[in-house]
Amino acid sequence: MLPSVSLLDSFQWSQFTTMLVIYLVAITAEAMSGALAAGRRNMDIFGVAVIASVTALGGGTIRDMVLGHYPISWTQHPEYIFLVIGAGLLTTLVARHMHRLKRVFLLLDAMGLIAFSLIGCNVALELGYPPVVVVISGMLTGISGGILRDVLCNQVPIVFRRELYASVSLAVCLLFQVMHTLQVEYNVSTLVCFAAGLALRLLAIRFEWSLPVFSYQQRWE
Amino acid sequence: MLPSVSLLDSFQWSQFTTMLVIYLVAITAEAMSGALAAGRRNMDIFGVAVIASVTALGGGTIRDMVLGHYPISWTQHPEYIFLVIGAGLLTTLVARHMHRLKRVFLLLDAMGLIAFSLIGCNVALELGYPPVVVVISGMLTGISGGILRDVLCNQVPIVFRRELYASVSLAVCLLFQVMHTLQVEYNVSTLVCFAAGLALRLLAIRFEWSLPVFSYQQRWE
Amino acid sequence: MLPSVSLLDSFQWSQFTTMLVIYLVAITAEAMSGALAAGRRNMDIFGVAVIASVTALGGGTIRDMVLGHYPISWTQHPEYIFLVIGAGLLTTLVARHMHRLKRVFLLLDAMGLIAFSLIGCNVALELGYPPVVVVISGMLTGISGGILRDVLCNQVPIVFRRELYASVSLAVCLLFQVMHTLQVEYNVSTLVCFAAGLALRLLAIRFEWSLPVFSYQQRWE
Repeated sequence: MLPSVSLLDSFQWSQFTTMLVIYLVAITAEAMSGALAAGRRNMDIFGVAVIASVTALGGGTIRDMVLGHYPISWTQHPEYIFLVIGAGLLTTLVARHMHRLKRVFLLLDAMGLIAFSLIGCNVALELGYPPVVVVISGMLTGISGGILRDVLCNQVPIVFRRELYASVSLAVCLLFQVMHTLQVEYNVSTLVCFAAGLALRLLAIRFEWSLPVFSYQQRWE
Repeated sequence: MLPSVSLLDSFQWSQFTTMLVIYLVAITAEAMSGALAAGRRNMDIFGVAVIASVTALGGGTIRDMVLGHYPISWTQHPEYIFLVIGAGLLTTLVARHMHRLKRVFLLLDAMGLIAFSLIGCNVALELGYPPVVVVISGMLTGISGGILRDVLCNQVPIVFRRELYASVSLAVCLLFQVMHTLQVEYNVSTLVCFAAGLALRLLAIRFEWSLPVFSYQQRWE
Repeated sequence: MLPSVSLLDSFQWSQFTTMLVIYLVAITAEAMSGALAAGRRNMDIFGVAVIASVTALGGGTIRDMVLGHYPISWTQHPEYIFLVIGAGLLTTLVARHMHRLKRVFLLLDAMGLIAFSLIGCNVALELGYPPVVVVISGMLTGISGGILRDVLCNQVPIVFRRELYASVSLAVCLLFQVMHTLQVEYNVSTLVCFAAGLALRLLAIRFEWSLPVFSYQQRWE
């Protein structure tokens, strides 16, 4: 999920620390969204912990399984597991006040989406996969945790229907891949992708941008 | 998903080309069925592209993850990804006319089911798995894309309830495994399995053959 | 799913045989619960066989895929596949009488849950994963077959809502890990965990113990 420690040498500590902090914010925000979804299904606190964990760490898990990237990142970082379970359980205590933090939550969630996407691109790049797979790896990391959450809560994944969300992940991954091809320096491209992605997501929320919907109700199969 | 290029030398080019064409038809047909399912859930075009891709490439992905067959086939063939996304998006444009092509669609879908099944058997055979796993690998490839599609669209997988469909995959895989054990020449067994499977599926559609249903409504657990 | 044959030398045959018998009871009980769930959705007998197999063998499959433990256990034991398919199909014949066996079924199911959990812990231990992953591996093996069953049957997984069930798996895995850390002899710790887990589960059923539920109905996201 995170750039591995071996990467540490190849770029600045401050850059690494920044991405780590954003990553930790990201899994915390995702865990909280998982806990709220579990609460909507009246799950017990065990279910809350599971859904929180799956939402936060499931995207990276699916990415690693698809890319054959073992050991899967969180298995080497038990502290992440405690963090997301803790965030999930804490959410059950503060949930009644969370609507007041709606804007903060949406901001954290947007930062998480973009951080996940960039990390996913990096993992595939390091493993030498072709550009299309780099983009897909970023998107898998960004959105499949939320898809797993919705499948386990028995609803159609919201990412396929909400205002620009998954598309932000796609845009970020494409931009990152293009800048990589153009050999833009890593720190620069990360910063540009992050800023562009965040702006796009926040604008999409503000102006309720969404993609065209495909409705098809005929039954003939 | 496809016999790898290294196989190319070991059997005739024409045979390989034929299977490739059928495979491409198969993933296109599967992608279209995914797009229609997404349309029934009023997804946006991003959701359509994802469901189309998952339906077309998900079966092979699950097979490869279960068999530990890395890298997963589509990661080495970006062109397949563009094909299935293109097919999914195109479907949104022509959907209103598709009921007129019902028979063509069902034929392509049947060819796809059988091609997927045979390819899945081949992958497990090459990896040296025992006969039962060869059959399961064929079926995983044949039907699990459709299962993923239905899970993501929040409905009970249709393959568990429709007229003979998954059973056709099972029959094809069993026949293929038996002919392999009897050392029937590969081209011959592929042809026989394909013809027998297609006949079985088309007869099942024509005469609405189906398996006995198990209904159980008691609640005591 | 099972301790591999190479383990055979390192502890007593009788111990191994006991765990094998319990494991076989476990996958049979899980297959039966899968078949009943399929029956509640009016699936055909093919669907019954698939849901039975996925419920019984899916937990170990997910664990092996997450841990990168290839080949996945059941691919090396075709006899397990026949057992679970047989158990699933047999269930369709005897289902109308099963409510009379409710207590037996719950006992077998509890034994299965605990056996799965202990086996899952062992697999992760052997692969050298850290303690947190050992516990998660046990729980994945114990409960994810049932989660897959419920997702394929299009319902919110029951393990997140029922009286203490998944929590029993967690307790057993934690106890096992603690005893391993304290270097308690393997046979002793297995026996203690098994007895404690079974007692906890049966008490939970008897007194309808359950975890606090988190209900959250606000919609603001």
